[in-house]
Amino acid sequence: MSTLFTATPTDVIDSLHTGLRVSLPRLLSRIAALAEVGAIDGGGCCRLALTDADGEGRNLVTGWMRELGLTVTVDAIGNVVGVRAGLEDGPPVMTGSHIDTVRTGGRYDGNLGVLAGLEVVAALNDAGVVTRRPLAVAFFTNEEGARFSPDMMGSLVYAGGMALDDALDTVGIDGTSVRENLTRIGYDGPQPVGQPDVHAFVELHVEQGPVLEHEGVTIGAVTGVQGIHWTEFTVEGVSNHAGTTPMRMRHDAGYVAFEIARFAREVAREIGGGQLATVGHVTLSPNLVNVIPNRAVFTLDLRNTDANALEEAVRRVFEKADALADAEGVRLTRRSLADFAPVQFDERIVARVESLAKARGHSVRRLPSGAGHDAQMLARVCPAGMIFVPSVKGLSHNVAEFTHDADIDAGANMLLALMCELAA
Amino acid sequence: MSTLFTATPTDVIDSLHTGLRVSLPRLLSRIAALAEVGAIDGGGCCRLALTDADGEGRNLVTGWMRELGLTVTVDAIGNVVGVRAGLEDGPPVMTGSHIDTVRTGGRYDGNLGVLAGLEVVAALNDAGVVTRRPLAVAFFTNEEGARFSPDMMGSLVYAGGMALDDALDTVGIDGTSVRENLTRIGYDGPQPVGQPDVHAFVELHVEQGPVLEHEGVTIGAVTGVQGIHWTEFTVEGVSNHAGTTPMRMRHDAGYVAFEIARFAREVAREIGGGQLATVGHVTLSPNLVNVIPNRAVFTLDLRNTDANALEEAVRRVFEKADALADAEGVRLTRRSLADFAPVQFDERIVARVESLAKARGHSVRRLPSGAGHDAQMLARVCPAGMIFVPSVKGLSHNVAEFTHDADIDAGANMLLALMCELAA
Repeated sequence: MSTLFTATPTDVIDSLHTGLRVSLPRLLSRIAALAEVGAIDGGGCCRLALTDADGEGRNLVTGWMRELGLTVTVDAIGNVVGVRAGLEDGPPVMTGSHIDTVRTGGRYDGNLGVLAGLEVVAALNDAGVVTRRPLAVAFFTNEEGARFSPDMMGSLVYAGGMALDDALDTVGIDGTSVRENLTRIGYDGPQPVGQPDVHAFVELHVEQGPVLEHEGVTIGAVTGVQGIHWTEFTVEGVSNHAGTTPMRMRHDAGYVAFEIARFAREVAREIGGGQLATVGHVTLSPNLVNVIPNRAVFTLDLRNTDANALEEAVRRVFEKADALADAEGVRLTRRSLADFAPVQFDERIVARVESLAKARGHSVRRLPSGAGHDAQMLARVCPAGMIFVPSVKGLSHNVAEFTHDADIDAGANMLLALMCELAA
Repeated sequence: MSTLFTATPTDVIDSLHTGLRVSLPRLLSRIAALAEVGAIDGGGCCRLALTDADGEGRNLVTGWMRELGLTVTVDAIGNVVGVRAGLEDGPPVMTGSHIDTVRTGGRYDGNLGVLAGLEVVAALNDAGVVTRRPLAVAFFTNEEGARFSPDMMGSLVYAGGMALDDALDTVGIDGTSVRENLTRIGYDGPQPVGQPDVHAFVELHVEQGPVLEHEGVTIGAVTGVQGIHWTEFTVEGVSNHAGTTPMRMRHDAGYVAFEIARFAREVAREIGGGQLATVGHVTLSPNLVNVIPNRAVFTLDLRNTDANALEEAVRRVFEKADALADAEGVRLTRRSLADFAPVQFDERIVARVESLAKARGHSVRRLPSGAGHDAQMLARVCPAGMIFVPSVKGLSHNVAEFTHDADIDAGANMLLALMCELAA
């Protein structure tokens, strides 16, 4: 593990006195300029992956990369990497994120990580500093998954987790493929997917949750990304008159759904730690006040950073669901909608985010990411980590998404310091 | 209580040997003929109250009443009563039900009670028997409530439970009033509502539930009609990301709804007896797999024949709902959709249904009615009771509604004997 950081902790503290800092106004102005592309009411953005608006956003950011002197490559899945040469050749220290958005997205999600990366380059350019290793700033295709499934597609392909052709053949919600849209917007590039190799990957992102703001903490040292287990349950019972059917003779699909849903909450409480359980979707049939439901379809979203605990949660809910269905005399079927194992970030990077934040006088806490990020895919091929800054009210995927300027400044300067150390 | 039945039990048994019986073929042929009016696929009927189809059905049945020699009156809310004179004047022994249907109704619900009443008259005519008291066969306006609210409107007005003008001014689902529809189909009659006074009222009806068939019982001696308490709950919480919001920081409207719904089932089990609890309708917002619901609207249908137990069920669920909402930090509001007290039928009639059935060799059990019926309104103004016959699979309000011919025969002959005794 000794080769990740070449500098010693003493060097790190010394670097605080070099005066290297990002320009907050320049960063904010780039965030605002990118948010003009696909702007929607309320200050948000709609740049679904590989739409014309996404293409326009890509052109804007790629132009900035070139202005900053980066060598830009576009790969076959449309990932864009801008490289800043180091004193030595070899794998760059990479940062990046995504610039596609959900349909009613905010201006920070993804964009902050990419544009803060450019600001790191700009600050080094301004100071005339050349790092030992090369630096790279990337944005990956279709992180949101709001138009094409799966999400984090570009970084997944980059990390070898999905075959390129499978990704290109993916058909989106409007019936068109990734391949034809990449060609249409001119981002079907010649670079082999997965190149360059990466020395380390760090991503700055808004938390998209309420924990940092709630606890008054500025910097999140992200320990990993939760495992996600999504299941759709279908319960099939018998419809009957609510007034004439004795309780003992019922096969109530709705009741079984309610019991499973509330039991999932109980399991989350009993397992504790970071175990999450959410039933966000339910539909009953025929959904009438005086008719016993003959059908209930509902989803269960279970997450945990701990793979064993997540597995236990799944097992316990499934067992209980089967028992409840048997007791009520209803048919229960399950369909897996998503199943991702937890990702642990590199402990050296997590620890360095923590110590750097403290050295700079920022409050900091370790926390897992509840949402998925490109960094979790890069973690398959290199040491990876993330820096979180607070989201006001925890809002994200929402035009009201907001992060205070001071937190953006803190996060971007953390990214600058961390990349300098990794590239020293 | 001695004046209700003039005949003694011995007389009753003797009457079994008079050979008085209804004609099953004639009754079935009238059921089939009426089912032709507003016939829909699958053998069902659509004769929503006061539509042209209902008017046509009314004309058919009123014609049969006149053919049988009944003196027909139509009152101001469209209730139709056909009276057969007795040896003495005075309030008649009345039977009847309704001939309107739900949109996808069956051919037995309501219709059986009216047409079996005509068959009682026909059998007495055939035998040349005149009862001491007059007899009457009635059908009441808008029992189903599928077009105009409330249901059981005609019998409710007949019994003085709703002002005539309020009923006439009621506007239905198509924006037209009871008054204008009564006029259009020619059933705004001159008879004062609530006339004639009634000595006793008995109604033959299909069970519309599964109990009799499930237990292999032919005759139900209906003890009363359940009280009904319908509530719509609205839970308002906060929408958030299912992956980034810790369990302790949630205000999950869906979870609170699920807990209340399953608790209602628990209360029904603990109170036991005839307590029913059904959550048939739920809608979540935004209803997405990975978003904590900020809003849940659901209905609770509580029923019991025991008013105190029903009140206890309501109180316990409401208290628990408030506590769950407080604990989760969500806002809970309630809206009453219906609140009817239980009705007890006259014990003398219930007991006589039971003893008559046994004397005729039928299996019989006492049971409450889960659904509302015109007899419960008549119970406000005279001794009242009901006879149930089995519904195959408990189906009703369904084109597949069916009752076996043998059960119709048994029920109609029970009605004949009971009316003869009450009018003896």
